[in-house]
Amino acid sequence: MPPKRRTTIADIAARAGVSISAVSFALNDRPGVSAETRLRVQEIARQLDWQPHTAARALGGAKAGSIGFVLNRPARTLGTESFFGDLISGIQLGLAGTHVGMNLLVARDAEEELATYRDWWRGHRVDGVIVIDPRRDDPRLALLTELGMPTVVVGSHPSPAGSAPTVWIDDSDATDTVLRYLLALGHRRIAHVAGRPEFEHTAMRIERVRSFAAAGDLDDALSVPTDYSAEAGARATRELLSRRERPTAIVYDNDVLAVAGLGVASEMGVAVPADVSIVSFDDSAMVRLVRPAITSLTRDTVELGQRAATLLRAQIDAPAPLPSLPGPALTLSVRESTGRVRAAS
Amino acid sequence: MPPKRRTTIADIAARAGVSISAVSFALNDRPGVSAETRLRVQEIARQLDWQPHTAARALGGAKAGSIGFVLNRPARTLGTESFFGDLISGIQLGLAGTHVGMNLLVARDAEEELATYRDWWRGHRVDGVIVIDPRRDDPRLALLTELGMPTVVVGSHPSPAGSAPTVWIDDSDATDTVLRYLLALGHRRIAHVAGRPEFEHTAMRIERVRSFAAAGDLDDALSVPTDYSAEAGARATRELLSRRERPTAIVYDNDVLAVAGLGVASEMGVAVPADVSIVSFDDSAMVRLVRPAITSLTRDTVELGQRAATLLRAQIDAPAPLPSLPGPALTLSVRESTGRVRAAS
Repeated sequence: MPPKRRTTIADIAARAGVSISAVSFALNDRPGVSAETRLRVQEIARQLDWQPHTAARALGGAKAGSIGFVLNRPARTLGTESFFGDLISGIQLGLAGTHVGMNLLVARDAEEELATYRDWWRGHRVDGVIVIDPRRDDPRLALLTELGMPTVVVGSHPSPAGSAPTVWIDDSDATDTVLRYLLALGHRRIAHVAGRPEFEHTAMRIERVRSFAAAGDLDDALSVPTDYSAEAGARATRELLSRRERPTAIVYDNDVLAVAGLGVASEMGVAVPADVSIVSFDDSAMVRLVRPAITSLTRDTVELGQRAATLLRAQIDAPAPLPSLPGPALTLSVRESTGRVRAAS
Repeated sequence: MPPKRRTTIADIAARAGVSISAVSFALNDRPGVSAETRLRVQEIARQLDWQPHTAARALGGAKAGSIGFVLNRPARTLGTESFFGDLISGIQLGLAGTHVGMNLLVARDAEEELATYRDWWRGHRVDGVIVIDPRRDDPRLALLTELGMPTVVVGSHPSPAGSAPTVWIDDSDATDTVLRYLLALGHRRIAHVAGRPEFEHTAMRIERVRSFAAAGDLDDALSVPTDYSAEAGARATRELLSRRERPTAIVYDNDVLAVAGLGVASEMGVAVPADVSIVSFDDSAMVRLVRPAITSLTRDTVELGQRAATLLRAQIDAPAPLPSLPGPALTLSVRESTGRVRAAS
């Protein structure tokens, strides 16, 4: 379809029989044009359904009216891991009714993520960004600070003073909740099928498993890193359940890994929870629907996204970094996949 | 964090000791400035890491470099119905490596969806949009045509010549595939738990159910409209299974409805598939994970989104509406939820 031209100030100038600068003066309420011409130009602009140009306003230092979110995961993740759909839903709820939009980009690697932030900021495409999966010495946060780009992090602990604020859920505390429950059920051989250890939240979980082992509560500290995919979850579970001294409980860093692990247990004839208990760090429709339904940490990810968007809107207007905010509370939703360790085990 | 100012042409002018207009002429390669000044200004711009302004380029009639997608469904839908996450994933794949971004907005109602298209187009925020869930006499398509905004529809049939092209999956054919399979298993009392009849794809499915009844293949034409929610799916199923002459098979318009229906069957002690067969129009991890796993129409929704984005990119550059394109093929994935009708029934 050949795009019909939008009304421009040249159209208004032609209709009014005045110069383009005269139209510009009239519409921007600046001197340089008679009161009569001003009124006539404004009336014609109304008739032609002319609208001030967002881009022009942005040039004048006004807001882009949009925030950015980059997801550096395989594109298909959006349809399988409900965490991301929920987070985006929440961000949208945090923007509802504000006329602020959202730019979404699925980056293929860390480099594309960095390049996107640069392009967005230089091109005045967004007024700020929400960053997930923070790492130690995160190059993204270094870049965003250098650019002076308003940023809110979704992470595991409050930010250091003076840096971009974080909406945080304490992953040490979350891990303690899971491990203490399993210890209370008598488990001592607990394996952790983890995500990517370069992410702070994963590192915190791994660290807690080590602490429990160091304190003598666990037989050993066993965290297996994965890329969060079902394939990696199945592989790790198959390896763990093939050991002579197999774990009596396995904790998975997300729902996709946990469901894949449950499938492998069934394939290998290992009964859940009689032979092995299973816990997921992420709740979702999937873990509730499988049989046995999987015990999971429940958090309101939609609410988490909403808080991040609301904080970013405030950060965009604030002259200095705002304080970090706690995210919604976590609770352990106990279902059918966990039970007391067997006496014989 | 106080956003550090991005380099502007005023900074370059100050450093070069020339006027802002001279910088503008030099950077835009227009006459009005000496060759020496031009080179000096361009060198300073490089040193200061100046970038042409996306907004300024858009003012000059250049592309916004972004496409838009509005989802008019409850915001939480993104995390529960994998169709939308998959479609967005596919759109992202269709944009990968092109430097074209995506604006996403979850609208609260039809009016906000229309207002968003107007704002995006007038503000040069996007170069075109992807529209889903088309209706008969769709006011969105009327508006987009009026605006002259490049549009691609995700729908159920090719568009009329001269209008926005559609990436289409034939919902009549899809319905025939499902109904013929159930007829072959001996079912004649088949109920259809539908979506919203104002959507063309839903209307086409309802129409096919009526045709089969009119031809005498079904005892009657029974389509129950819903809003796609789990609650509505449960309610419809409870009502259908409470009838004296209850259906021997139920076909659900999406995966959320089907999973909810399966739950109600279990709650009411109606065995699946012995007492009632269940089919879903949407495949997903959910319908594969429940027990019994649900027979579903499988289509590659990621591929569908990718084709739509690729077609929209071509449409944005094309002088006239491009032809519609078929979407990826559908196949019936038969699982454990369907079986022959019982002789006694």
